[in-house]
Amino acid sequence: MKIDGKHYTTVWRELDCTESFSIIDQRTLPHKFVIEELSSVAAVAAAIQDMHVRGAPAIGATACYGMFLAFVEAKANQAKNSSEEIEKAVIDASKLLAATRPTAVNLFFGIDAQLVAADFSKPIEWQIENAIAVADAFAKEERERSRQIGLHGVSLLEEISKKKDGEVVNILTHCNAGWLACVDYGTATAPIYEAHERGIPVHVWVDETRPRNQGARLTAWELGQHGIPHTVIVDNAGGHLMQHGLVDIVIVGSDRTTARGDVGNKIGTYLKALAAADNEVPFYVALPSSTIDWAMQDGVAEMPIEKRGGEEVSYIHGRADSGEITRVLLTPEKSAVANYAFDVTPARFVKGLITERGVCAACPSALKEMYPKLSSNV
Amino acid sequence: MKIDGKHYTTVWRELDCTESFSIIDQRTLPHKFVIEELSSVAAVAAAIQDMHVRGAPAIGATACYGMFLAFVEAKANQAKNSSEEIEKAVIDASKLLAATRPTAVNLFFGIDAQLVAADFSKPIEWQIENAIAVADAFAKEERERSRQIGLHGVSLLEEISKKKDGEVVNILTHCNAGWLACVDYGTATAPIYEAHERGIPVHVWVDETRPRNQGARLTAWELGQHGIPHTVIVDNAGGHLMQHGLVDIVIVGSDRTTARGDVGNKIGTYLKALAAADNEVPFYVALPSSTIDWAMQDGVAEMPIEKRGGEEVSYIHGRADSGEITRVLLTPEKSAVANYAFDVTPARFVKGLITERGVCAACPSALKEMYPKLSSNV
Repeated sequence: MKIDGKHYTTVWRELDCTESFSIIDQRTLPHKFVIEELSSVAAVAAAIQDMHVRGAPAIGATACYGMFLAFVEAKANQAKNSSEEIEKAVIDASKLLAATRPTAVNLFFGIDAQLVAADFSKPIEWQIENAIAVADAFAKEERERSRQIGLHGVSLLEEISKKKDGEVVNILTHCNAGWLACVDYGTATAPIYEAHERGIPVHVWVDETRPRNQGARLTAWELGQHGIPHTVIVDNAGGHLMQHGLVDIVIVGSDRTTARGDVGNKIGTYLKALAAADNEVPFYVALPSSTIDWAMQDGVAEMPIEKRGGEEVSYIHGRADSGEITRVLLTPEKSAVANYAFDVTPARFVKGLITERGVCAACPSALKEMYPKLSSNV
Repeated sequence: MKIDGKHYTTVWRELDCTESFSIIDQRTLPHKFVIEELSSVAAVAAAIQDMHVRGAPAIGATACYGMFLAFVEAKANQAKNSSEEIEKAVIDASKLLAATRPTAVNLFFGIDAQLVAADFSKPIEWQIENAIAVADAFAKEERERSRQIGLHGVSLLEEISKKKDGEVVNILTHCNAGWLACVDYGTATAPIYEAHERGIPVHVWVDETRPRNQGARLTAWELGQHGIPHTVIVDNAGGHLMQHGLVDIVIVGSDRTTARGDVGNKIGTYLKALAAADNEVPFYVALPSSTIDWAMQDGVAEMPIEKRGGEEVSYIHGRADSGEITRVLLTPEKSAVANYAFDVTPARFVKGLITERGVCAACPSALKEMYPKLSSNV
């Protein structure tokens, strides 16, 4: 999508570049737009772990590009470049990348795509070229999945628009499942961008999304850059808005979806699903099938929930009146703080899943029917 | 309750002081402890409007003290001190105070207590002395109501403690319904302080409470000052904690309770009530009967919800690393922002009301039975 009129994706490789790739460093947004060039596996791991890049699909593509650097480094660091040495170095790099974030299953898909395509018996130059091609194709596929989600999801917004006789359709979203979380288009935002493209008037309630404020910082920024009307609200406000008929539909993303349709997503998503159910507001989850974990059923019981450092809660970053991007302390110095990054929304609260193949119910049979091959691969 | 070992209330008049009273200015907490002396009606109105003092019972007591200053000012400003002049000046002052905050019914109780007790035919000196006595009694009654809420509510915590064989009782609370919101003891916190006093081990999950962070700033601070174990969480986290059995009971306060038990409280309360219902966690509301609006039934439909300035959402205040208390911008400059201050939790989600007369169900008949006189005064 566009930034200052120029088209970007979140992760990309310049065509002639075989020793690095680039990401948008999302930490300073919306105050400052920074591009980061990554040229080592360690830098990629840090970029994922410290959330320069975040959002399941974007993490997957970044890890996949990170793996091409593993081959580049293996070539540079190994004396003999024997198959065994290269393989060991690449496997070690894959473990380093896999250990960066525990919840996003896409991370592992991005890494595995490279391991499956690797042929360590081939010359290292072939291996590097192959890894580059794999990463480029992986990113392209993610981009296409988002585009398809938009094409399928827009029908829901069109339907509401018709029912409302063309009045503005109010969508509530949580966190950033926008194009910044993907390679392009977004997941939850893809139908919104598509509706805007088709001239359907939309307005987005953007949940701030504490503690890292991805809604207030990123979703608001990317919607604004694209000219989509939106209003930032605190995470506490959604229930009140739904009680008063100010939300027509909720669309969120997913970091990990179980085979029966439970949705692991940014902490607080579950609370919005409860409010939607209580007020009969349809609650949809937009996701590429790459985020579905076919081996998992009961999300609440089985999904590991990342606990992050307490300083993300006790300190908040923003732009001081001086223009400097800085942090302030919110809590008493001696108070304990806990920071759960995700929660699980049980499938019973999910009206439907918007995937790249179409919209389906959040239940095992509908998911199986939509993805017969993937679901039987477990 | 205690601050650095010394006993305080939120609003007080020094015994020999007939021209001013004092409040704790809560805006700089937890980073800086400031006492503010108020000596004009305009200063009192500003202190309420700009939330130097907040919380329904504390606002009521502050307004009641503010009204004694109305008499003091009437004496100073009127040439002849005729009954008519005094009455007009006092009524004008009451209107100024009544316009400061729209939701808290206690504000009007504090003002009305003075108007009912006034006798404009008497000499102005009598009127001032009378207004002082009315304010002192009003604050004392609020304090006693909080103490009684603690004595009644502690039985709920004792019961859970017994069921858990003395293991720590985990309480979740939203916003600050602590002693800083009242004159002393608090409402939601009163049972917690009482349990702590009785040696029942408790731990409090403190919702941050965006946008003004009263939980992270005030509840965490006052609990810490009193030695109560607590952990600050973002408002998004409560549902996840309840799904995993980490919350035994929710206790929140109320800014306005309807005659049928609907609860108007800080924005986001409703979302916690939904999560409590979905996970069978008892959800209680602690309130002095002064916050019950006997003339109102359907809170969602009838209760006016204050919309405050958007800068409370887009900017956040805290302590910079330099030690300075300052603000940072969280949102893109061009993004719209909405700031709803309260929401309404329908009575069907409320397991019980903890009042100064005892614990009762959140329904018209139980409330009527507990307060036969008040409920029939409508």
